[in-house]
Amino acid sequence: VRPAAAGFVEGMDRVLINGRPGHCISPLDRGLHFGDGLFETIACRKGRPRLLSLHLERLVLGCRRLGIRMSDPDELRRQVQALAQDSDASIVKLIVTRGPAPGRGYAPAAAGEATHVAIRYPWPEEDPDAARNGVRVRIAGLRLSENPLLAGMKHTNRLEQVLARSEWQDPQIAEALLFSQSGRLVSGIMSNVFIVRNGQLRTPRIDRCGVAGVMRRVVMREAARAGIDVRECTIRAAELEQAEEVFLTNARIGIWPVRVLGERTLAPGPLTRRLQGLLEPLLEEPVDA
Amino acid sequence: VRPAAAGFVEGMDRVLINGRPGHCISPLDRGLHFGDGLFETIACRKGRPRLLSLHLERLVLGCRRLGIRMSDPDELRRQVQALAQDSDASIVKLIVTRGPAPGRGYAPAAAGEATHVAIRYPWPEEDPDAARNGVRVRIAGLRLSENPLLAGMKHTNRLEQVLARSEWQDPQIAEALLFSQSGRLVSGIMSNVFIVRNGQLRTPRIDRCGVAGVMRRVVMREAARAGIDVRECTIRAAELEQAEEVFLTNARIGIWPVRVLGERTLAPGPLTRRLQGLLEPLLEEPVDA
Repeated sequence: VRPAAAGFVEGMDRVLINGRPGHCISPLDRGLHFGDGLFETIACRKGRPRLLSLHLERLVLGCRRLGIRMSDPDELRRQVQALAQDSDASIVKLIVTRGPAPGRGYAPAAAGEATHVAIRYPWPEEDPDAARNGVRVRIAGLRLSENPLLAGMKHTNRLEQVLARSEWQDPQIAEALLFSQSGRLVSGIMSNVFIVRNGQLRTPRIDRCGVAGVMRRVVMREAARAGIDVRECTIRAAELEQAEEVFLTNARIGIWPVRVLGERTLAPGPLTRRLQGLLEPLLEEPVDA
Repeated sequence: VRPAAAGFVEGMDRVLINGRPGHCISPLDRGLHFGDGLFETIACRKGRPRLLSLHLERLVLGCRRLGIRMSDPDELRRQVQALAQDSDASIVKLIVTRGPAPGRGYAPAAAGEATHVAIRYPWPEEDPDAARNGVRVRIAGLRLSENPLLAGMKHTNRLEQVLARSEWQDPQIAEALLFSQSGRLVSGIMSNVFIVRNGQLRTPRIDRCGVAGVMRRVVMREAARAGIDVRECTIRAAELEQAEEVFLTNARIGIWPVRVLGERTLAPGPLTRRLQGLLEPLLEEPVDA
C-alpha cells in the first residue's frame, strides 16, 4: 500500500481542484511537465487563514511575471477560507499552474486555462522550544543558482530545496542556511533569514534568487513601524559569522531564533525577542494583513 | 471548453501512468509541488523508439543523482515500445517523479513510490527546409542560472525554458540560444548547440547548467568515430560570433543547421553536412543506441 495514496484517499475532502473537491490532475499539466507554476503556504488558526491578503498579493504578482492567467483572487480567498474553517489549526497550500497543454513544447501559448489546487494539511506537531529557545541550523553545502527573472517568486521549481533538504537527516537540525553561487546569503530552505549586526537588523536582498517571504515582509514592516532600523542588503559569510543574533521567519513559524549555527552557539537576543513580541498578536489571533 | 481537456480525453489511450492506461495524477505528487522529477522525449519512427537505451541510461543516472527510486528501466522500455508501435511516427515523453507525498515539506524521505508517466504525442508537422536549408535562431535575453548539482539532467524544473520561449512569437524563428549568468554559451531552449571554428567542432560543456542531450552525445560519438576533432569547451559570445558553422541537435530533429543567428547570416557548412550524412542512417531506421 502506498502511504501517499492511502493518506490521499482518506483526506480527499481536503483537496479542491479548480474550486471543486477532486483528486485528479491531468498528466498533461504544465505544472507536472515543467514546474510551470507558483504556490503559497498559508497558516490557518482558529478556522481562519492568517495574512491571506499578502499571500494572494504575491501569488497575483507571480502569475503576472510568469504570464499565468490565474482566476479571480477573491475566488481563491473563498476556497482557502472554506478549507480553513473546519479546523482549529491547519496549513492550506495553494498551487496555481499554467494548466494542461495538449501538445509538447515550452511555449506558454500552448496552455489552456490555469489549474488551481488547494490542499489542507494538518498543522504539524511542534516543538514548543523552537520559538522559545531557538533552533539548530546548519550551513547547506548546495549553493543556490541565480536568475533575477525568477527571484522573489514562490514558484514550483524547487529541486534545489529538495536537494539541500536531503543533505541531513538529524531531526535535531531544524533548517539549513543557503548561500548563492556568488557567495551571498539568501535564506533558509523553507524560511527567510534576518541577522542583527552592530545592533542593526538586516536581511538578504531577494534580487538574484530566493523567495520574498510573507512573514519576512511582515517582520520588516513591524520593525519599521516600531522604529527599528531594518534594511535589505548583501550579506556574505563573514557578516553572518559576526552576527550577534540570527533568526528565521516563515508564515507558519513566525520567528525562530537560531541558537546553534554550524559550530557556533548563539543566544536568542534582545532584538529577536522584541520582534517576537511585536508579532505575537498577529500570530495568535489570525490577522489578514 | 478547455482545448487541453478535450485533446486529453480523445487521446486517453496514449497515456500510461505507472504502466496502466490512466488520466489521473495525484494532487499530492511532488512533481507538481516541486518539479521533483525528470523527463525524456523519445523520437519514434516506423513504430519503434530511437536511441531508447541512451534515453533510459540518462534517466537512470538522473534518478540516481536525485535519489528517486524509479522502477526497472526494462519495464519503462516495454511501455515506450508499446506506445510507439501503433504509430508510424510519434514522440513518447516519459516523466518520472519522486511520487506523491502525504505531507508537506521538501525532505525527499516523505515521498512514497516514484510516479511513472508515459505519453504518446503525434510527430509534429515539420518544415522539410529546416534540416536542408537551416533555421533562424535568436539570442535569448534570459540567462540561465548555474548550479553544477543540476547540470546535465533533464529535470522538470523548466521555468527558465518557459520564460525564454515566451520572448518571441514569430513562427519563422525556430529556436533561441542561451548564455548562462556567467556569460557562457549553454544550448538552445530545446536543443544543444555545436559550433565549427577554425575548422574544429566544439560544443559547450554542460557542467554548470543545461541538458546533456542524447543527440549531442550521438553527434560527438559519430564525429569521433569519423576522425573529426570534437571537444567540449567554454564558448563565449566572441567565439560564437567567429564560428564558421553553427548547428542545433536534439533527439527529434537530429541536426538543424543555423542559417540566421540574430543579425548574422550563415550557410550550412561542410562539417555540418558531413555530420548530417553520418547521422542519416541512425535517424531514418530507428536505431537503439
